[in-house]
Amino acid sequence: MSAPMTVADATSAATLLARCDELAAYSSLPDGLIERVYLSPEHAAVNAVAARWMTEAGLTTWQDAAGNLCGRLEGAEPGLPALLLGSHLDTVPSAGRYDGILGVLTAIAVVQRIRASGRTLPFALEVVAFADEEGTRFGRALLGSRALAGTWDDAWWELRDAEGTSLHDAFLAWGLDPARIGDAARRPEQLVGYLEAHIEQGPVLEDEDRALGVVSSIAGARRFMVSVIGAAGHSGTPYERRRDALAGAAEAIVAIERIARTAQLIATVGQLEVSPGAVNVIPGRVDFSLDLRGEYDSERDRIWQVIQDTLSELCERRGLRWESVQTHSAPAAACSARLREVVAAGIRSTGDERPLSLFSKAGHDAMAVAAIAEIGMLFVRCEGGVSHNPAEHVTEADVAATIDAVEQAVLALADSSDGAERAPR
Amino acid sequence: MSAPMTVADATSAATLLARCDELAAYSSLPDGLIERVYLSPEHAAVNAVAARWMTEAGLTTWQDAAGNLCGRLEGAEPGLPALLLGSHLDTVPSAGRYDGILGVLTAIAVVQRIRASGRTLPFALEVVAFADEEGTRFGRALLGSRALAGTWDDAWWELRDAEGTSLHDAFLAWGLDPARIGDAARRPEQLVGYLEAHIEQGPVLEDEDRALGVVSSIAGARRFMVSVIGAAGHSGTPYERRRDALAGAAEAIVAIERIARTAQLIATVGQLEVSPGAVNVIPGRVDFSLDLRGEYDSERDRIWQVIQDTLSELCERRGLRWESVQTHSAPAAACSARLREVVAAGIRSTGDERPLSLFSKAGHDAMAVAAIAEIGMLFVRCEGGVSHNPAEHVTEADVAATIDAVEQAVLALADSSDGAERAPR
Repeated sequence: MSAPMTVADATSAATLLARCDELAAYSSLPDGLIERVYLSPEHAAVNAVAARWMTEAGLTTWQDAAGNLCGRLEGAEPGLPALLLGSHLDTVPSAGRYDGILGVLTAIAVVQRIRASGRTLPFALEVVAFADEEGTRFGRALLGSRALAGTWDDAWWELRDAEGTSLHDAFLAWGLDPARIGDAARRPEQLVGYLEAHIEQGPVLEDEDRALGVVSSIAGARRFMVSVIGAAGHSGTPYERRRDALAGAAEAIVAIERIARTAQLIATVGQLEVSPGAVNVIPGRVDFSLDLRGEYDSERDRIWQVIQDTLSELCERRGLRWESVQTHSAPAAACSARLREVVAAGIRSTGDERPLSLFSKAGHDAMAVAAIAEIGMLFVRCEGGVSHNPAEHVTEADVAATIDAVEQAVLALADSSDGAERAPR
Repeated sequence: MSAPMTVADATSAATLLARCDELAAYSSLPDGLIERVYLSPEHAAVNAVAARWMTEAGLTTWQDAAGNLCGRLEGAEPGLPALLLGSHLDTVPSAGRYDGILGVLTAIAVVQRIRASGRTLPFALEVVAFADEEGTRFGRALLGSRALAGTWDDAWWELRDAEGTSLHDAFLAWGLDPARIGDAARRPEQLVGYLEAHIEQGPVLEDEDRALGVVSSIAGARRFMVSVIGAAGHSGTPYERRRDALAGAAEAIVAIERIARTAQLIATVGQLEVSPGAVNVIPGRVDFSLDLRGEYDSERDRIWQVIQDTLSELCERRGLRWESVQTHSAPAAACSARLREVVAAGIRSTGDERPLSLFSKAGHDAMAVAAIAEIGMLFVRCEGGVSHNPAEHVTEADVAATIDAVEQAVLALADSSDGAERAPR
């Protein structure tokens, strides 16, 4: 009687939350703060822990050529195309413990339940724990899922982290072979689709009093590094002679907020560096990041032009100049009608008769996987809409609903696949 | 014939500029950029070079208990009170090669000339090369001159540099004994006064087509570290839910510029740190430095109150909070009538019949020395008013006028001292 009890426990919401706590301890930051970046010792450690859980769930596991952790459960016969279930295990600095992690652990729990039920599916199930979604270390997001999608860009090998280590050298130091990165790529014919559960990172579900929601599409983001260049000088210099890069950047940041807000887009300046950075020296140069996202790519691109015009005007007025480089660009990605429907079916099975549909303002691994497979996403309510913050929180009841809904979504897809296959024959 | 030629060369403007170039090579930064901070290997190196020049000029040299380099030439009899001539040898990051250095090298050249002339003065002459004026390493300015003035604060021992090294431990590592800091202090009765030549760090002399100017007073500065605190969150978070510390800080920086400019004060935000500092995370906290200076202390203090009220208003509106700590406060320091007059006499001797008087917007070692001696300052035109920048520049003709004017100012003081001593007797 003890073995079934153990299996049931391992797929409960309580276990899942305990595992989130366990993974939170693998961090490069002290004092309980979480930061876990690509190709770090913490990355290796959580892959090892998650691999053990996958093995206990009955999956065959391996680490792919990009450091993503994968686990597979065969379907009705070996070698069938796979439905991928997953999310990521890397984090931002001072992160919460659910963003990404919840989706990976939900995937493991769901596969473990289906295997325990003895039911065989018309497709294989694979869990993927992506190694880099946030882009914290190398400033480029979705490295793990871009490798799996076969859309890796060789220019990335020269990306450098804050210590000056190139992505290429980081691969070698972590025991990966850059020359084999292509081995991580999957082919479309190997895949049935990709399903990802994720915290909402926004307030819509909470405001609407729903635990779960169906994602319609993922907004595309463009990211830039903007440099404002003036002239360093002594802090006693009068205003007529100043070319203060930080005063100019501050005016730009206020303007960017106003422009984006008016256009119902979202702009975030999350990084800003001042040079030379002394208390008694006028800043000669400021570099800041800009993350620009919206539901429609065309509107987002139009607003970037408005921001550029504003930068030109204020820099000319202040005797400054500016330049920018684009560091990331992702088009909006739509979830497929079929996977939206099975996610909705999963949510209905938890008692929510009319599941809410919403679009994602945050980027997700699903955007990258969309290049080779249809995608679906389920959102989970998070307290206050807060994420990327130690205060990130989900309830046990919502996690229980998440596991149930994803399990039922997979089974609904299996039913529709069985039906689809039977019908034409 | 060769010995007098060597002496003449050593006190020329060309030699002085060549020595500025020579000292510029002692830097902790690569690529020709200059940074030389307190208690660093570069500090030791430039003290050694300058000590050699002082010795060649006929001075008895020593390094005091704070790491200041001193050199003395006795007057008509040994042990007379001394007129101090000096400035500093430390720098900001990415500094120019004249701020501070020019004053020290001028002092050496002037003493060397007076000694070579065979004239004995009614006071001793001392050259002081202060070891820390800028406060670059420990964030606290005037450490060298505060030690000499006997106004050292024992709380400073716990100041830490960017690597976490305390000032106390830096003293030990550099070979100084913190317990002996009091030995650096001079007593008022040992001093006749303090005279400092310095680049203007502003455009007034250039605009007025003058090489030199008499400093009337040195504006007092107050410095603060201001923290704006919001909540970190995912960059997809909608505006209604954001508590973006950087957007708030940017609005504050724009407001501070407007307020200070309107009040004819100068405010500089030279440092700014964003936490957590990721491209896709709303900043939860921003810390920035504020340097506030003006001719009148009362007006400066009133404007700081206006800035605080503005911070409170904008933080309340944005769901943020703010706090500040004062890191530096110096009252305005007046130059004495007697030393203003001898500086003016020195400038007149160079052919400028009606020397311009101006106040200093920048702080100087003279502010600290004012606690124990009357002070006088001479300003030298610098190109475009630029300082704290590699582009800092002075002309050879202006340097020649500087050496001549300071020499004549010292002699004018000797004449008036002779007269003053003779008159009552």
